[in-house]
Amino acid sequence: VNLILIESNELRASGGVRLSDARATHLVNVLRVTKGTTVRVGMLDGPCGAGVVRAIGDGTVDLECQFETRLPERPRVDLLLALPRPKVLRRLWAQLAALGQIILTNAERVERNYFDTHILAPACYRPLLIEGLQQARDTRLPPVSVHRQFRILVEDDLAGLFPSGRRLLADPAADRQPAVVMEQQAAERTLLAVGPEGGWNDFEVGLLEAHGFQAVGIGRRTLRTDTACIALLAVVHQGMRARQ
Amino acid sequence: VNLILIESNELRASGGVRLSDARATHLVNVLRVTKGTTVRVGMLDGPCGAGVVRAIGDGTVDLECQFETRLPERPRVDLLLALPRPKVLRRLWAQLAALGQIILTNAERVERNYFDTHILAPACYRPLLIEGLQQARDTRLPPVSVHRQFRILVEDDLAGLFPSGRRLLADPAADRQPAVVMEQQAAERTLLAVGPEGGWNDFEVGLLEAHGFQAVGIGRRTLRTDTACIALLAVVHQGMRARQ
Repeated sequence: VNLILIESNELRASGGVRLSDARATHLVNVLRVTKGTTVRVGMLDGPCGAGVVRAIGDGTVDLECQFETRLPERPRVDLLLALPRPKVLRRLWAQLAALGQIILTNAERVERNYFDTHILAPACYRPLLIEGLQQARDTRLPPVSVHRQFRILVEDDLAGLFPSGRRLLADPAADRQPAVVMEQQAAERTLLAVGPEGGWNDFEVGLLEAHGFQAVGIGRRTLRTDTACIALLAVVHQGMRARQ
Repeated sequence: VNLILIESNELRASGGVRLSDARATHLVNVLRVTKGTTVRVGMLDGPCGAGVVRAIGDGTVDLECQFETRLPERPRVDLLLALPRPKVLRRLWAQLAALGQIILTNAERVERNYFDTHILAPACYRPLLIEGLQQARDTRLPPVSVHRQFRILVEDDLAGLFPSGRRLLADPAADRQPAVVMEQQAAERTLLAVGPEGGWNDFEVGLLEAHGFQAVGIGRRTLRTDTACIALLAVVHQGMRARQ
């Protein structure tokens, strides 16, 4: 954990907060804070700042926080992901925390019962996203939307979810590298679509391409969904920085 | 699994092999092969090929294999990794299977007891690497070496392990992107050094730089070791392909 995230309703008007959960344990047992130690804090969906340890009690830590006036920039990469196996998605949530938004969709090669899992309940994934934000030193919780009808998502909903920007479609068979497309097409934001482990079917690829998605690849290897997401997002983020 | 790996001592002179372990179960229960089905096979550290299902028994599958004459290319990226927590390393092995070699090292911020773990025993990691190879459709098992003395590794052993090529040092504080260094310095092979979660210390960075490692970064975020490896290796592989 590289940042202690605090929810706005936890914060007293004075800037004080009493932590009594895993964050307190982490401060005491891992970061080994003592009275007077300053730690990096962030307000969930708000600014970063510094917290000074004012008191350590039995399982509690009192912090006095000062926040920056500026909000961190909104992440500029969004992900459209065919719903992976629950076990994979559970591992993946924390890794997706630093994205602009997460759009989960059905596809032919997504098993129907994946949608019944509790891992799609905000009560389940929100703590995992927050864990990821604390690791990544980010404060913005990415919006998550779940779409059971791929066609309606792409034809009707996507224009609202991702009104403008570059749309990329990860395809192991594509020879074009993300960097090449990103150099050719300037854009503030990028939406990356990653298919199921068995791949999108032809209809799905066609529909995505008809809606502006350009196929890009990072090599012919078939990757596990979690590896593919991490690898592709690293390459896309790299492409975003190269353009700055 | 995208490739069934067969060890050379399993193969009869005729090209026949009887599988009776997880590979047989996978062929029957996941790939749902029947008599006559052709599946991709590979010989460990050898060529890829095709296997035709000749018989399915009680927990066994008989394949008749034909192999290509050409060996797959040796992967051109090697990893020098400060030994991560056993739990992280266990998850990571399969992800590292498609590398040229894996060099594990001590560092100041590596806990001593990480070296006592059975996850460093070939009997433990070899099946995990093979699992990764089967996923990645590769056949070459990367050599693994474990070094308890960082300085001796860098000063004495590294010249033999990685005689020539580009040496990169992953550093969250570095502004230079891997692609920039890779464009400037042509090389057939790349060795990427990834530090412990707490980072290399100053002596270690100095020693690496004195031995030709150039610091590169993919953003200021502090990443978990497994995420950092996957993300960095994706960016480096991308850089290798851009030069082809």
